Amino acid sequence: MNGYWNDTPGLRARLLRVEAIMEETVRDPSFPLGDQVAQIALSQGKMLRPALLLIGSGFGRPIRGAAPPATIERLAAAVELLHTATLIHDDVLDKAETRRGLPTLHTRFGAVEAVLAGDWLLSRCFRLASENAGPENARLLSRLVGSVCSAEIAQDLGKFGYTTSVRAYMRTIAGKTAALFSLALHTGASESKAKPAVTSTLRRAGYCMGMAFQVIDDILDCESTEGVMGKPVGKDIREGLCTLPLIHALRADPAGMKALLVRTREDDSVAGTVIARIFELGGIDRARETAHLFTERARREIARLPGLPQKDELSLLAERLLTRRY
Amino acid sequence: MNGYWNDTPGLRARLLRVEAIMEETVRDPSFPLGDQVAQIALSQGKMLRPALLLIGSGFGRPIRGAAPPATIERLAAAVELLHTATLIHDDVLDKAETRRGLPTLHTRFGAVEAVLAGDWLLSRCFRLASENAGPENARLLSRLVGSVCSAEIAQDLGKFGYTTSVRAYMRTIAGKTAALFSLALHTGASESKAKPAVTSTLRRAGYCMGMAFQVIDDILDCESTEGVMGKPVGKDIREGLCTLPLIHALRADPAGMKALLVRTREDDSVAGTVIARIFELGGIDRARETAHLFTERARREIARLPGLPQKDELSLLAERLLTRRY
Repeated sequence: MNGYWNDTPGLRARLLRVEAIMEETVRDPSFPLGDQVAQIALSQGKMLRPALLLIGSGFGRPIRGAAPPATIERLAAAVELLHTATLIHDDVLDKAETRRGLPTLHTRFGAVEAVLAGDWLLSRCFRLASENAGPENARLLSRLVGSVCSAEIAQDLGKFGYTTSVRAYMRTIAGKTAALFSLALHTGASESKAKPAVTSTLRRAGYCMGMAFQVIDDILDCESTEGVMGKPVGKDIREGLCTLPLIHALRADPAGMKALLVRTREDDSVAGTVIARIFELGGIDRARETAHLFTERARREIARLPGLPQKDELSLLAERLLTRRY
Repeated sequence: MNGYWNDTPGLRARLLRVEAIMEETVRDPSFPLGDQVAQIALSQGKMLRPALLLIGSGFGRPIRGAAPPATIERLAAAVELLHTATLIHDDVLDKAETRRGLPTLHTRFGAVEAVLAGDWLLSRCFRLASENAGPENARLLSRLVGSVCSAEIAQDLGKFGYTTSVRAYMRTIAGKTAALFSLALHTGASESKAKPAVTSTLRRAGYCMGMAFQVIDDILDCESTEGVMGKPVGKDIREGLCTLPLIHALRADPAGMKALLVRTREDDSVAGTVIARIFELGGIDRARETAHLFTERARREIARLPGLPQKDELSLLAERLLTRRY
């Protein structure tokens, strides 16, 4: 784990236990790629999703049926392993050579192993969920994986299609990112027997934070420098994805942007010009407004939560996601 | 569904309902590849695994907590969808162009969509399990997916290594095939509240049938003709897999066989010679003995079951798997 949680030491200590569970899970003697997958799962990740689950559980009540801390930590490990599984599959599909500074699994062992290792992780995450969550939350998790896949398929099928529908864009990022943020907070709260109204508020807060997070991701694809993000600049643009800044630029100058995008497909180096035009046409500014809007909505939801230390942790996290540079 | 179940009309009628559930599940409005995946899932498959689950449920008792037929059929759909998911991923990894006479998903839509569609199916299968099975059986299913992946990874990492360990071979086919046969019978029986002793017997029978099934698969890889199996002859051999007939041939003539295998890796057409040598060295005969042995063990387990019509269905199926030509 990197230094992301240094200023919330209590949360950091629990996240280290979550990492220990992840490591133990992945280094299963029956799983031939345990060491390699452990390296990826435990490398420099921000551990955002498990942190949300732990924060959510802080709103629980010490009543009958509330999950003990160790159970909550195993569920937190499950959501991070689910995230790791999707990263491993994404890397195969993108033919990415590095992830978080390490060579990707498929460059080291081939696509076969990487796809199967992702499947293995998915199964392990379902197993952790079915062993540690109630049936209703285990079901939500499997439904979520489905919605992530559907959103990714829709996104992939739409590559180089450049629809300028903000609505379709929102649907995709809701499925691929916001749903998991929302589920993490929900699961933590629900398994810890938080009041239903509090659980719903957390679910909505998670959704808004996830939406803001993904919009910022799109912005960083344009303005970050390689090395900071751990992935090349303009990667999404070059892959034909319609990010929110690009949608706004396409709406402002349809003919000019389309001509540029056609050239980018033939010549990778045009991506820099595309990004420059996105800035000029105000695409970044407008996307940033959207990120602010979702963060503002998340803040309003968070304000409604009972005044516990976890409330401050969540506020801090929402701010940090909005202003993040990587 | 093909004509496989024509002589057991009761089972066939239920399997058609299982297919209807599979179709309904796959054609989810949120899933962009529903039509294509439905085509694959419902094409000419033998529906062996769901048949085992239905047969297993026939040993249940009409007591409190026993799953109703509709629930059992949904679980049967789950195991077949799990099988479909593994086929879709296998096809991506093998770069296969056709499956059951249809173009594979990845040749039509690319590897990205195929991997994600497989993930989506996996998640849907976990969801069906968590909605329709008790938590213990849902857990067994996720554990099983893990063991299938581990076995496939071990098999893939061992390609062209040609270990002649029968024990390692048995462990691999137990993980990739027999475990699912066993689980299908177990889940059907257990969710229908069969007596624990009957459930255990079914689990063992399923294991032996799965082992026999996979050994026969290895034999058919050598002796079938293309078109009948729906895959090219000698495919496993050419991919560097160590099938049981090959292991026996390698033990009988290590130097000669290894030289041939080295040539096969450079020149695909040598595979025919490899297969001819496997026959000459008695590899096929010895593998057939193993298949008989497992079938014999399955028969003994089946003989211990209570005298219900399902017992005859299971016997018939065990015979049919042993003598199958595709």
